[in-house]
Amino acid sequence: MNFSYELDELIDLLVPKEVIGHTSFPISYIESLTKTKRGGISFLGNLKYRKDVSISQASVILLPMGLDLTPKENQCFLLFDNPSLALGKLCQDIEKKYCHRPSVGTHPKAIIDATVSIGQNVSIGPNVVIEANAIISDNVVIMAGCYIGHGVKIGNNSVLHPSVKVMDFCEIGSRVTLFSGVVIGSDGFGYETVDGIHEKIPQIGNVIIEDDVDVGANTTIDRARFSHTKIGKGTKIDNLVQIGHNVIIGNGCLITAQTGIAGSTIIGDYVVIGGQVGIAGHLNIPNGTMIAGKSSVASYKPKMGKILRGNPTMPINDANLFYVLRSKIPNLFDRVLKLEESLRELLPK
Amino acid sequence: MNFSYELDELIDLLVPKEVIGHTSFPISYIESLTKTKRGGISFLGNLKYRKDVSISQASVILLPMGLDLTPKENQCFLLFDNPSLALGKLCQDIEKKYCHRPSVGTHPKAIIDATVSIGQNVSIGPNVVIEANAIISDNVVIMAGCYIGHGVKIGNNSVLHPSVKVMDFCEIGSRVTLFSGVVIGSDGFGYETVDGIHEKIPQIGNVIIEDDVDVGANTTIDRARFSHTKIGKGTKIDNLVQIGHNVIIGNGCLITAQTGIAGSTIIGDYVVIGGQVGIAGHLNIPNGTMIAGKSSVASYKPKMGKILRGNPTMPINDANLFYVLRSKIPNLFDRVLKLEESLRELLPK
Amino acid sequence: MNFSYELDELIDLLVPKEVIGHTSFPISYIESLTKTKRGGISFLGNLKYRKDVSISQASVILLPMGLDLTPKENQCFLLFDNPSLALGKLCQDIEKKYCHRPSVGTHPKAIIDATVSIGQNVSIGPNVVIEANAIISDNVVIMAGCYIGHGVKIGNNSVLHPSVKVMDFCEIGSRVTLFSGVVIGSDGFGYETVDGIHEKIPQIGNVIIEDDVDVGANTTIDRARFSHTKIGKGTKIDNLVQIGHNVIIGNGCLITAQTGIAGSTIIGDYVVIGGQVGIAGHLNIPNGTMIAGKSSVASYKPKMGKILRGNPTMPINDANLFYVLRSKIPNLFDRVLKLEESLRELLPK
Repeated sequence: MNFSYELDELIDLLVPKEVIGHTSFPISYIESLTKTKRGGISFLGNLKYRKDVSISQASVILLPMGLDLTPKENQCFLLFDNPSLALGKLCQDIEKKYCHRPSVGTHPKAIIDATVSIGQNVSIGPNVVIEANAIISDNVVIMAGCYIGHGVKIGNNSVLHPSVKVMDFCEIGSRVTLFSGVVIGSDGFGYETVDGIHEKIPQIGNVIIEDDVDVGANTTIDRARFSHTKIGKGTKIDNLVQIGHNVIIGNGCLITAQTGIAGSTIIGDYVVIGGQVGIAGHLNIPNGTMIAGKSSVASYKPKMGKILRGNPTMPINDANLFYVLRSKIPNLFDRVLKLEESLRELLPK
Repeated sequence: MNFSYELDELIDLLVPKEVIGHTSFPISYIESLTKTKRGGISFLGNLKYRKDVSISQASVILLPMGLDLTPKENQCFLLFDNPSLALGKLCQDIEKKYCHRPSVGTHPKAIIDATVSIGQNVSIGPNVVIEANAIISDNVVIMAGCYIGHGVKIGNNSVLHPSVKVMDFCEIGSRVTLFSGVVIGSDGFGYETVDGIHEKIPQIGNVIIEDDVDVGANTTIDRARFSHTKIGKGTKIDNLVQIGHNVIIGNGCLITAQTGIAGSTIIGDYVVIGGQVGIAGHLNIPNGTMIAGKSSVASYKPKMGKILRGNPTMPINDANLFYVLRSKIPNLFDRVLKLEESLRELLPK
Repeated sequence: MNFSYELDELIDLLVPKEVIGHTSFPISYIESLTKTKRGGISFLGNLKYRKDVSISQASVILLPMGLDLTPKENQCFLLFDNPSLALGKLCQDIEKKYCHRPSVGTHPKAIIDATVSIGQNVSIGPNVVIEANAIISDNVVIMAGCYIGHGVKIGNNSVLHPSVKVMDFCEIGSRVTLFSGVVIGSDGFGYETVDGIHEKIPQIGNVIIEDDVDVGANTTIDRARFSHTKIGKGTKIDNLVQIGHNVIIGNGCLITAQTGIAGSTIIGDYVVIGGQVGIAGHLNIPNGTMIAGKSSVASYKPKMGKILRGNPTMPINDANLFYVLRSKIPNLFDRVLKLEESLRELLPK
């Protein structure tokens, strides 16, 4: 993305507490202190990197107050209580000004059933297919190649990136973002084996995604056997996650990439799940639980506490202790052998 | 999905052994006992939840025979030998009557090479691309945005959900379902490193998927180096699974989400594999093996038996014992230390 | 794929050191020794399978020099220093002659912004969407249904399989292959939680994929928070891999299926990563490190060495020792108990 800020614009935007030095170079990229050269902006987010400031070639550096540092020639320091926050503000401004926004309207190559209801200011890209009786609310963006099934509802201001598939009768809330390749409402994995034949159990429920949810690229969320698979308000889901049928996820959860949650499990509010975690079916994980990456939750009991780790999971302290002791187990075998030898000597022959 | 059943219709459909009470409300959704309200139907699948029946507001409840329970006003109990089976019958009826079925015919926005052979009663959705010499048999459904490569064969009654990709020369059997985002026949991951360059080994085989196979959303099955990657009849594969090149999977297997099977491994018939399992390449897993979720099968020897668990896998009983003892290892260190101290006291100084 | 080679053609192509016997059957498939029948070619890649040669029905067998074996009637042996290399040569020839290559030109159903720059000999398939200011270099192939965002650059001779999505401002090098369903440049997973609301951190960087990289089906590579997520020259990535924002991967790495690398981690050159590995964020993995499949790298210290295994990872020898001892732990508990009992007898009562 090409952007450009003159020093004056930056000062107006970020309102630093203090300005030291000056640069004549417009700013066109952001990088870490040691990688930034002329025309770049950098920042000191962590004091342990403070000596990188003196070697940085950045034209502008965002710094915390109270450091005794002097800019080089044609270099400007902008001082803040919190330089990371100032950087965030800059990034937001860049996103607002320079990121492409799809234009409002329906692309002539979109294929939309006559019964579909479309709100105000909606953007529908090329090759989008929307089936009968879907309801698309105001300000929704549906990018190229998405598939919206029969009777699907999409709330205000939601954004569907290219090639998202939302299958029949699923409901997407407001301000939801579904990234590329997401599949919402594919059938749950349910079979009944009769005489060696795996007979499919009908999956006639749907998926309900509440407001302010994000779902990462190529993640899959299965429709319920009946009733609903549900993702609660404000929950954020990363890429390549699998959510099984009839799973209920609470509000404000964070679910990191490649995690899988098996059918009918209930996850409370503000649960934080690391990457590649596996959670078995029919469990009940309480509010505020944190699960370390790569853990596998085969069962859950309240006495396990709120922070879990391991395969299968243990309370985090037990897991950390086990991982320390694990490397001492060879030595423990030696110690036991030595004990046995000593004792043999002590025993009457 | 909107559906509606009057009580009379339900009784005609499900043929209960006994009817107790009556409701005037038509039934428009299915939910668990405690969540169901007026207009809903629920069921008692497990006797341990029997006291939920007395608090349920469901208008209709499917119950086993022999319980001494009385419906509330405007509530009806339908009694069966097996209420779960009755529920399944209802779900099947809902699916048949209310789920959308793509209409027969080729959408004008599909792009189909003139050499493609298309059977009777085929449904081809918008934006589908079918390359030269593909053969599409009777009653096949290919939904929006699918890509069917050169010379691909698809058997009778198979269904491809939106945006499935079947690459050149792959063969799909009859009554196969491929869910959204599935990729069949991408190149296997094979390189030969010569002077620091990873040179690609040609992957000129294909994928053969036999009859009655289901493949879940965003799953990937790679084409063989030469000859075939093969999925046997009646095997069901969940979402986000990876099947490497030249893998041969037998009949009737169940492979749960996010599992990966590395190249050239042979899986027997009726093997059941939990979620997030990893199986190394060039292994031979016999018929009927069961592998617990999150396990990693680095090698396989017949003495390991038929039920495996762990990372790497052990016989299930060994794994379960290890996971119990794991939490006692800190204490074992303490016990050994105490033994050493006691022994030190016993030994002559 | 249908191919056919007469014996004379094979001899001309592969130039064997010696020809023993003769076959009149043209060769139309490749299979392992025991599965090949009339019209098939097979090879002996590993001497331990030599007795399969005498039972093989293959019409042609590629063999190493120096074996004392006699072909059956209508069977021909071709002898080489390295029969595997000869097979590779045959596969390459089949690929060149018989694999379909998309024809040069832009399909009339592609949707390409007027500002897009397109090089010589480019092939653009149906339903491809290319947004404003993208640059497509010479000999690029973009197959059906791909989405190319604003300002994306794609280098010479790169191939994008069906339904690849490359989001705004990402840069793809030369001779890169992106397999079906790949998503390049989806937003990184970054939130700042303020008063219980997960506020999205703008992700305004991009992804840079250098020359000669392959990316497997349905793999996702996230754009940087700012600056770049980068995949180095010659690195090969398998299916369903997740690469987080601001990850930097060196040259010549091999990353196997379903691996996940969390944000801001730096991977050196020629790192080899097995399947289903998880690598935590903000780590620095040095050149030449090898990580066994299913491992989880929670931290990295140079003393851990170059070959890692385990969950969390240990030096490979420690991990292998631990996995051997793991099965002896139940017995260790027994031995400690026996020691305690013996000692109790020794101690004064």
